[in-house]
Amino acid sequence: MRSVPKYLVTVLLFALACFLASASDPSPLQDFCVAINNPTSADSRKYRKRLGSNVTLVNVDKLPGLNTLGISLARIDFAPYGLNPPHTHPRGTEILVVAEGTLYVGFVTSNTDNKLFTKVLNKGDVFVFPIGLIHFQFNVGKTNAVAFAGLSSQNPGVITIANAVFGSNPPINPDVLTKAFQVDKNVINYLEQQFK
Amino acid sequence: MRSVPKYLVTVLLFALACFLASASDPSPLQDFCVAINNPTSADSRKYRKRLGSNVTLVNVDKLPGLNTLGISLARIDFAPYGLNPPHTHPRGTEILVVAEGTLYVGFVTSNTDNKLFTKVLNKGDVFVFPIGLIHFQFNVGKTNAVAFAGLSSQNPGVITIANAVFGSNPPINPDVLTKAFQVDKNVINYLEQQFK
Amino acid sequence: MRSVPKYLVTVLLFALACFLASASDPSPLQDFCVAINNPTSADSRKYRKRLGSNVTLVNVDKLPGLNTLGISLARIDFAPYGLNPPHTHPRGTEILVVAEGTLYVGFVTSNTDNKLFTKVLNKGDVFVFPIGLIHFQFNVGKTNAVAFAGLSSQNPGVITIANAVFGSNPPINPDVLTKAFQVDKNVINYLEQQFK
Amino acid sequence: MRSVPKYLVTVLLFALACFLASASDPSPLQDFCVAINNPTSADSRKYRKRLGSNVTLVNVDKLPGLNTLGISLARIDFAPYGLNPPHTHPRGTEILVVAEGTLYVGFVTSNTDNKLFTKVLNKGDVFVFPIGLIHFQFNVGKTNAVAFAGLSSQNPGVITIANAVFGSNPPINPDVLTKAFQVDKNVINYLEQQFK
Amino acid sequence: MRSVPKYLVTVLLFALACFLASASDPSPLQDFCVAINNPTSADSRKYRKRLGSNVTLVNVDKLPGLNTLGISLARIDFAPYGLNPPHTHPRGTEILVVAEGTLYVGFVTSNTDNKLFTKVLNKGDVFVFPIGLIHFQFNVGKTNAVAFAGLSSQNPGVITIANAVFGSNPPINPDVLTKAFQVDKNVINYLEQQFK
Amino acid sequence: MRSVPKYLVTVLLFALACFLASASDPSPLQDFCVAINNPTSADSRKYRKRLGSNVTLVNVDKLPGLNTLGISLARIDFAPYGLNPPHTHPRGTEILVVAEGTLYVGFVTSNTDNKLFTKVLNKGDVFVFPIGLIHFQFNVGKTNAVAFAGLSSQNPGVITIANAVFGSNPPINPDVLTKAFQVDKNVINYLEQQFK
Repeated sequence: MRSVPKYLVTVLLFALACFLASASDPSPLQDFCVAINNPTSADSRKYRKRLGSNVTLVNVDKLPGLNTLGISLARIDFAPYGLNPPHTHPRGTEILVVAEGTLYVGFVTSNTDNKLFTKVLNKGDVFVFPIGLIHFQFNVGKTNAVAFAGLSSQNPGVITIANAVFGSNPPINPDVLTKAFQVDKNVINYLEQQFK
Repeated sequence: MRSVPKYLVTVLLFALACFLASASDPSPLQDFCVAINNPTSADSRKYRKRLGSNVTLVNVDKLPGLNTLGISLARIDFAPYGLNPPHTHPRGTEILVVAEGTLYVGFVTSNTDNKLFTKVLNKGDVFVFPIGLIHFQFNVGKTNAVAFAGLSSQNPGVITIANAVFGSNPPINPDVLTKAFQVDKNVINYLEQQFK
Repeated sequence: MRSVPKYLVTVLLFALACFLASASDPSPLQDFCVAINNPTSADSRKYRKRLGSNVTLVNVDKLPGLNTLGISLARIDFAPYGLNPPHTHPRGTEILVVAEGTLYVGFVTSNTDNKLFTKVLNKGDVFVFPIGLIHFQFNVGKTNAVAFAGLSSQNPGVITIANAVFGSNPPINPDVLTKAFQVDKNVINYLEQQFK
Repeated sequence: MRSVPKYLVTVLLFALACFLASASDPSPLQDFCVAINNPTSADSRKYRKRLGSNVTLVNVDKLPGLNTLGISLARIDFAPYGLNPPHTHPRGTEILVVAEGTLYVGFVTSNTDNKLFTKVLNKGDVFVFPIGLIHFQFNVGKTNAVAFAGLSSQNPGVITIANAVFGSNPPINPDVLTKAFQVDKNVINYLEQQFK
Repeated sequence: MRSVPKYLVTVLLFALACFLASASDPSPLQDFCVAINNPTSADSRKYRKRLGSNVTLVNVDKLPGLNTLGISLARIDFAPYGLNPPHTHPRGTEILVVAEGTLYVGFVTSNTDNKLFTKVLNKGDVFVFPIGLIHFQFNVGKTNAVAFAGLSSQNPGVITIANAVFGSNPPINPDVLTKAFQVDKNVINYLEQQFK
Repeated sequence: MRSVPKYLVTVLLFALACFLASASDPSPLQDFCVAINNPTSADSRKYRKRLGSNVTLVNVDKLPGLNTLGISLARIDFAPYGLNPPHTHPRGTEILVVAEGTLYVGFVTSNTDNKLFTKVLNKGDVFVFPIGLIHFQFNVGKTNAVAFAGLSSQNPGVITIANAVFGSNPPINPDVLTKAFQVDKNVINYLEQQFK
């Protein structure tokens, strides 16, 4: 009997990684089903740290038992005046509770009116950031702040706007950004410098 | 022009309460959509308090902005040796993080094997209770404990086993309970006394 | 070329078993997709038999063609005065029709009020048990009874309350059960004896 | 204060009828939520009766408690050689069990190959008809037959092919049917006569 | 160490093909997840070509990046008087826009009333065909026509009624078709001839 | 009998608007269900026009029959060198086909790596933009271009990044934007000027 080509198994493992991450947020079909791991990036963490915030996301990669269960949890630590910059979760709504400190939070609605909703949250206050909308959290106090957030997906994803637009790899064509932001190329280059 | 019978509006309001609570956990179709309120019971809260725990659930009734967003959040406070007794969430998975103290937590799988999974959680530890499974949290420390939990529905529901089985209104037929628990009627009566 | 380590294939098969059971109740993406088998427990069947009921569940494990189709079917046979004891389906709603005999059925709502709804069903009558709620069926006639039930998942799961609470493996910490049921340890021990 | 125009309430009632039928098969957000009624047609029942079959569907219109619970149940009675003719359920998979008699059943897959799968089912046998596929049940015995079917929607819908194609109201343009079935107009007219 | 039996890998590949096609229309759990290929049939294309229409479906098989994203797109080309014959999509709703020419389109509702809705669409007009309902498009102009259609599944499926009923493989039992269409066997045989 | 307070009806109408927009993308429970209208903004259209692109979205507001059907369609017209600037759809994946001209398109993945995927599309080419990811389309030809896009929601929403971040109403706190983009306040003010 001939042995099995290695590449086949590689294909299978890749496909499984896909599946185990991508199946069925809506409802599990077993009590639970352990998943396997995806890589995640270090750059966006560094950037956030520079801004004085640190997100520890417990998603299906950290807690394989979450697989198929449609939820994840994040702890967000803020230095004084630390910022969790404008970002979206492409696959989840976020519900946040302040455990320590005072946060100024907000989100912007879609193009129906691009309305900004903001609130100052003290310890124990709760706020919701609807799926896919741009939102931020800012520690407006002199002390550290801590918040916990539930997200409505086992792998909600995070898109930090500044990173994704001005720090993508490779960079977005400058003609596109110049037109989109309606400023001259120097401003776009300057912005891109910050995310090299 | 004749005016509108009141009962019609009552029907409409009831139906809307239904709808606004019952639409679309899977995905919203607007940035957000404000809901209206459902009644919730005081009895189970009293019972929990007697056991030294207190659950503050921020679901769609407390935070109408959650409507259609498929998530809710709970804060659970434990007195020393306080217990959040065995219960299920019929419509949601729970992900829990310990903010203060030490909790002994566990859940039992379905009849495939009724296996008990338990863990002692310290500050910062995270655990998952899959949708519909019986689970509990017990403060095994001498100090207060606090936990936050995300739930994968805007209205996950709670069924406290002891309450629902021995304290339902009206009570479940004693022949059913006697057979189910395979003990004599006195034991069932005794158990029911505790939940009158 | 070197051959492939066995454990790899084991991992793959496990993962597939997961997947094939856990993908997509909400909607299939093919006409059908054959699944593979999960183990199921004998103990709960024995217990039910002692109570004079027998459940034959045609789920995705019995009928692999059900995979991804979001439904299953059960036949429940009752001896005279046979009981299908209080249980929940963590992942499915049940719709039941009586084919022979007379059943006394009921379910208890969640902690909003723990209200008990009951009805006596004769041949041809239909009843619904909403997802995750505690329910039971009791043959109140002198003759055998037969019912068929549709369940809204290819793998709805079953949690028999008495089994899961007093017969889990290992047992739930007696301090937890004593507190939860507010009775002394002897009663809990006595109850646990019945499920050893 | 001026009273409320009637048409407003009509709009509301229509909208509610829509909603109460159309919300959230995937998962409820309450223990249950009572619905209101939709009209259903008498013609297709007459036609089925002529063929010696009778379908009693318990969907959300018959059992309002089914609303949002994503399941329904049908009882199908067959006279000797009675036929439940080729039809589809646009919004649900069907799982069928034979309670009495012997049925010859089948379904045709989609255009990937239009393969016909058939089986002769005796009392107690179970079969699945995947969502949206054309299927039929034929009593091949000299005696009556009875089957029960679970369907994976609170309102799965039924499309009897012959009725919908040759008996629609108004009729489909004969040029369309002549081309589609590649026969001359007489044959199409003849077929349409049967469903006037 | 022994090498791995081939059949195991075959099982795995089959299962993966299943999975990658069948997981999670409702919502992805990754930015994207590349799928692998399914076979599709040539016969229904030939038949359509004979009728003067040609459907180019970009589903997950043509564009693996669609996997888990719940949508696909079709281009439909019509010769003068070309017909896209009555068909259903068992797993998707279709939204169609006319890019060139003039189309007469229609769909028939389910057995609630089998009502036919039709419209003549000119360049730029848009129409919707709800999931699972029988519908058609007919080029009523002297020139070619082109339409684009979005479908609400990565693999919506197509069932051409005439093909599936009179051209299935093997053929449906003539007793079934004779009864269903209420005509004599010659007519059924004649119809079946057209799809040999 | 007293007449009905107006505000009640207002509440009902608001709630219905919510509902009719927000129910059940995953699957309808009727053949179709007509919706009612939401307002949409003129500003983002003006901005896009300045960039030489124009989006005509046929969503549930334009085509009420789409309600509950989980899909919508857009036509995008581009002047020479016209740009559809970086934006996201918070509730839908987009599949795009080029009907005329040549487009340079791209999207950026989430923070796993913020990778940019781009392609030059000619007439007939198809591309996918996964749910929630930032993407753009740029007409790189000297002639007009036209594209059609299917979106996997009846109301996918649009968030134009530049508008939402620098043109929200009221503006986002400049401290937040200055930190997030790591540039001095003048640059932020300059950018905000473009969206006044």
